[in-house]
Amino acid sequence: FASGKQFEATLFPGDGIGPEIAEAAKQIFIAAKIPVVWDEQRIGKTPDPRTNSMVTRENLDSVLKHKIGLKGPMATPIGKGFRSLNLTLRKELDLYANVRPCFNIPGYKTRYDGINLVTVRENTEGEYSGLEHEVVPGVVESLKVITRKASSRIAEFAFAYARENQRQKVTAVHKANIMKKADGLFLECCREVATKYPDIKYDEFIVDNACMQLVSNPTKFDVLVMPNLYGDIISDLCAGLVGGLGLTPSMNIGLNGLALAEAVHGTAPDIAGKNMANPTALLLSSCMMLRHIGHKTEADNIQKAVISVIAEGKYRTADLGGSSTTSDFTKAIIDKLD
Amino acid sequence: FASGKQFEATLFPGDGIGPEIAEAAKQIFIAAKIPVVWDEQRIGKTPDPRTNSMVTRENLDSVLKHKIGLKGPMATPIGKGFRSLNLTLRKELDLYANVRPCFNIPGYKTRYDGINLVTVRENTEGEYSGLEHEVVPGVVESLKVITRKASSRIAEFAFAYARENQRQKVTAVHKANIMKKADGLFLECCREVATKYPDIKYDEFIVDNACMQLVSNPTKFDVLVMPNLYGDIISDLCAGLVGGLGLTPSMNIGLNGLALAEAVHGTAPDIAGKNMANPTALLLSSCMMLRHIGHKTEADNIQKAVISVIAEGKYRTADLGGSSTTSDFTKAIIDKLD
Ligand SMILES: CC(C)[C@H](C(=O)O)[C@@H](O)C(=O)O
Ligand SMILES: CC(C)[C@H](C(=O)O)[C@@H](O)C(=O)O
Repeated sequence: FASGKQFEATLFPGDGIGPEIAEAAKQIFIAAKIPVVWDEQRIGKTPDPRTNSMVTRENLDSVLKHKIGLKGPMATPIGKGFRSLNLTLRKELDLYANVRPCFNIPGYKTRYDGINLVTVRENTEGEYSGLEHEVVPGVVESLKVITRKASSRIAEFAFAYARENQRQKVTAVHKANIMKKADGLFLECCREVATKYPDIKYDEFIVDNACMQLVSNPTKFDVLVMPNLYGDIISDLCAGLVGGLGLTPSMNIGLNGLALAEAVHGTAPDIAGKNMANPTALLLSSCMMLRHIGHKTEADNIQKAVISVIAEGKYRTADLGGSSTTSDFTKAIIDKLD
Repeated sequence: FASGKQFEATLFPGDGIGPEIAEAAKQIFIAAKIPVVWDEQRIGKTPDPRTNSMVTRENLDSVLKHKIGLKGPMATPIGKGFRSLNLTLRKELDLYANVRPCFNIPGYKTRYDGINLVTVRENTEGEYSGLEHEVVPGVVESLKVITRKASSRIAEFAFAYARENQRQKVTAVHKANIMKKADGLFLECCREVATKYPDIKYDEFIVDNACMQLVSNPTKFDVLVMPNLYGDIISDLCAGLVGGLGLTPSMNIGLNGLALAEAVHGTAPDIAGKNMANPTALLLSSCMMLRHIGHKTEADNIQKAVISVIAEGKYRTADLGGSSTTSDFTKAIIDKLD
């Protein structure tokens, strides 16, 4: 997608506060003159037998067609026998990498300063295999699956990401001292890929130590790559360091560059429809989406505007200690656009 | 063991800085008039075929006999085909619970204040089953094993611990939204046990959210109970919040009240033998040991002395930014004893 040329993208507004924050993104995209045509998709209200979840075939086809999408939070469906929405999207679209940049927002104070790291999470296997059984009553086995294919793919992704984004170092996070074969294979793949990227430093941290270092000395990390569950844990931990899921962007990447950016926070049903929601996570995610398709200048423009509104502190939503409405916050961002 | 009556306890000084910090503990116990007779044990230098590790039958028998012990750090043996020392001790002594209180040391500044929580880790199963195999080249399966027996036992331990230590709440940490059967069984056991402790509050956190909350709002936690790997990760994360493994005590509990308190930091070979090591983790662990056998007053006496020396700041070892020797720090503690 060349800058300036019209493009289509899937938009899942999602549930709860989803439609309001999606509206903020749409308005800001118009104001920033992003030539997008949104293909708005709603998840079904009853399970689609073709996907065994609320995600419909049409939903998937939209992303497969446009190869790029933005997603708001979705309510976890109640009841059993069908798959969670997030997991269905990951699985059906083979979204093998989850990327979450984590950085301090100037002016928004947390206990930490100077954090600027990225977690790269393997998104398809590991502890998420879904393979579990009760061997005898009271004894359950759950299978963690690690493959060379998925491990090499995510390692390759992490190093390529580091190089493209002028990052210095990739750290593999593992527990190979205990899961010698599974995490050992993961490390082996990371080491192999590392040799192909002599310009990027490479090191390894055991997951428990990684978490201890992340809470005491997070600025020593740059890009972190890890199997599914450690990625799940560490990406949330990192979000916690800089203000939580309401402020941190996320994007999932699949085959042939297909990408689905998403706000990973919840649907916040208590404030839904009240014009109180903070759209920051979705907006920063939309910037990741834009960068991914080559609209770097536009992404920087929007991101700078979002960050400077929060930094100035005049317009902040309730979750950040302010009393602005979603619309006023959005308008303030629009006023900051170049 | 009634207070005042002589008792025997196993002491593993360990490797690296182990002997120096063990010496500090011994001197302080003498000064505090703890009527202990140490049965000092050294781990073997070659694998013992009876345990398949450097841990000898005599080592194990000593702990089994005295039912109480204190352990310094041990060097991870190099080479393959035999088990790690820590895992051997856990396994052979059935040390099913790892307990780590985590609290701020007054005067020792970190990014956090007012932390006062305890992690209770299931120590025998989960991801530590050691059951792994390569299904076909490049595809590894690793088994997580969760049993009703071990889950109920650790839940029971956590609630009993909470009650005995005047704690208000137990939080179960899990990933039952993904490992529905394995972590589901763990939760089921926690819920069952919770009904027997109406005086203790009970809640549940998904592990990723638990970590995010721990780094942003840790004072909301009290006692946390969890399967092996989450416990491994979260106990280190928590140590990181209050100053690291050099300041945090740990104790492992087995059948019939057998207990092995330990410093969980490393052997620090770079400073070994230089009279520079910080004995705090081992000393606070020795206080856990004393409390466990009913010497509460003596434990409080030592703990208060350790904490007030660090708080005053005149005698601090290099890791805490001071320049005191291990012996001067130890002497300062002795001077503070009642
Ligand atoms: C909702 C849940 C299934 C999911 C996960 O565990 O992957 C979430 O925590 C995430 O990180 O996207
Ligand atoms: C050394 C290692 C095997 C051990 C573990 O993973 O349990 C350590 O991290 C711990 O917490 O005691």
